[in-house]
Amino acid sequence: MSTGSPVEIPARRGTAVRLRQGQSVRVINTHGQQVVDTWAFRDGDLGEFMSMEHSRVALGRIIPGVGDTMVTNRRQPILTLTEDNSGGIHDTLFAACDRWRYELLGCTGYHDNCTDNLSTALAELGLAPPETPAPLNLFMNIPVIDGNRVEIRPPVSTAGSYVTLRAEVDCIVAFSACPQDVVPINGLALRPTEAHFEVLG
Amino acid sequence: MSTGSPVEIPARRGTAVRLRQGQSVRVINTHGQQVVDTWAFRDGDLGEFMSMEHSRVALGRIIPGVGDTMVTNRRQPILTLTEDNSGGIHDTLFAACDRWRYELLGCTGYHDNCTDNLSTALAELGLAPPETPAPLNLFMNIPVIDGNRVEIRPPVSTAGSYVTLRAEVDCIVAFSACPQDVVPINGLALRPTEAHFEVLG
Repeated sequence: MSTGSPVEIPARRGTAVRLRQGQSVRVINTHGQQVVDTWAFRDGDLGEFMSMEHSRVALGRIIPGVGDTMVTNRRQPILTLTEDNSGGIHDTLFAACDRWRYELLGCTGYHDNCTDNLSTALAELGLAPPETPAPLNLFMNIPVIDGNRVEIRPPVSTAGSYVTLRAEVDCIVAFSACPQDVVPINGLALRPTEAHFEVLG
Repeated sequence: MSTGSPVEIPARRGTAVRLRQGQSVRVINTHGQQVVDTWAFRDGDLGEFMSMEHSRVALGRIIPGVGDTMVTNRRQPILTLTEDNSGGIHDTLFAACDRWRYELLGCTGYHDNCTDNLSTALAELGLAPPETPAPLNLFMNIPVIDGNRVEIRPPVSTAGSYVTLRAEVDCIVAFSACPQDVVPINGLALRPTEAHFEVLG
C-alpha cells in the first residue's frame, strides 16, 4: 500500500526518509539511466549502518538479488530487496563519489558529489553521518570481469523500472541521485537526472 | 635494506608499526596458510586511512597486483604493493571478522577477532581507530565466480611467501593474524598461526 505519491530525488542531489520496521521504499529510476547511491542507518544509533563489506559476507555474492537482506556493520538485518524489475544490476564495490574523485577526473571548482549529498540529506533531518559508508549503488553497472577487473558501464535499467527495499528495523534511508557526468555511470549521455522514491506499507 | 629481524604477529592477535614515507614492510606468511588483515592510517590523522572501496575505483580491479597503489578514503596514495611471491591472491571484499561474525557462526563466549585486534594493536601506540575500515586481507582467497558469487577458499600462498608494501606517506600499518577457525579462511586445517613482518629501507 502506498502512503503517498512519489517523492523526487532531484538531479545531482540527496534526500533521506525515515522508515519504520516493515515499511518499504520503492526507488524508481524515472528516466532509466540514473544511479541512486543508497545508505541506511539505524534510527536512534547512526553508528550502526548498512555495510556492503558485511553484506557480501552474509549474502555470498557481490550483487544483491530479490530476497537478499543487507546487513549492518554489526551484521544485523537492515534492508531486504523484495522487488526488482530493473535488470538486477547494482553495485556494492565502489565508494560514493566525492570532491577528490572529481578533482582526479580533472574538474576544477566544486562538483556536486554523493558524499556531500549524504551529509546534506541527513542534515535536513537534523542528523550527521558518522562516516560515509560504502553505498548500495542502485542501478550502477560495474561488472567484475575474469574475477578481477572492474569496468564502468552504463546502467541496464529502463525508464520507470524500480527496486523495493523493506526495512527490517526502524531506519533512516538516504539517497543520492549521483551527479557523475564525466564517466558513463549515469549512461552514455553523461546527463544526471532526477529519480523518485515512494514509501509503501 | 632490512632495519631489523622479522617481528612476530602472534597467532590470533594484532600488532601495528609506524612507517615513514618510502619505507616498506614485508608481510611474511610464515606457515603459508595464514590470512593477515591489513590496515593503514595516515600518521597524525587517523581519519584518513586505506580504503578498499576507493582503491577498487583507482585500480580498476578488486585484487591489487604488483605496482598497484592503494588509496585512502580521500583518494590519496598510501601503500604500494611492490613485491608478491605468494600467488597474488588477496581479498578486498570482506569485512574484518568481529564478535557478531562468530556469534552467527555458532561460537559461544568470546572469540578472538580482527576488529578487536585492530583496536588492541593501535592502543599499544596510544591510538584508537576512528572506525574499522574494510581491510586489505592479505593471502585471503575469495574468488568472484560468474561475476557475482563469492566463495571462501583456503589461501594459495606457501610457507615463507610474502608481499611487500611501500608507504607513500607517513603511516601506521596494523596487522591481524586472522583467528578464523570455523571456516577455511586460514586453510583446511582451520588452524590460525603466527605470521611475521619486517620493516625495510
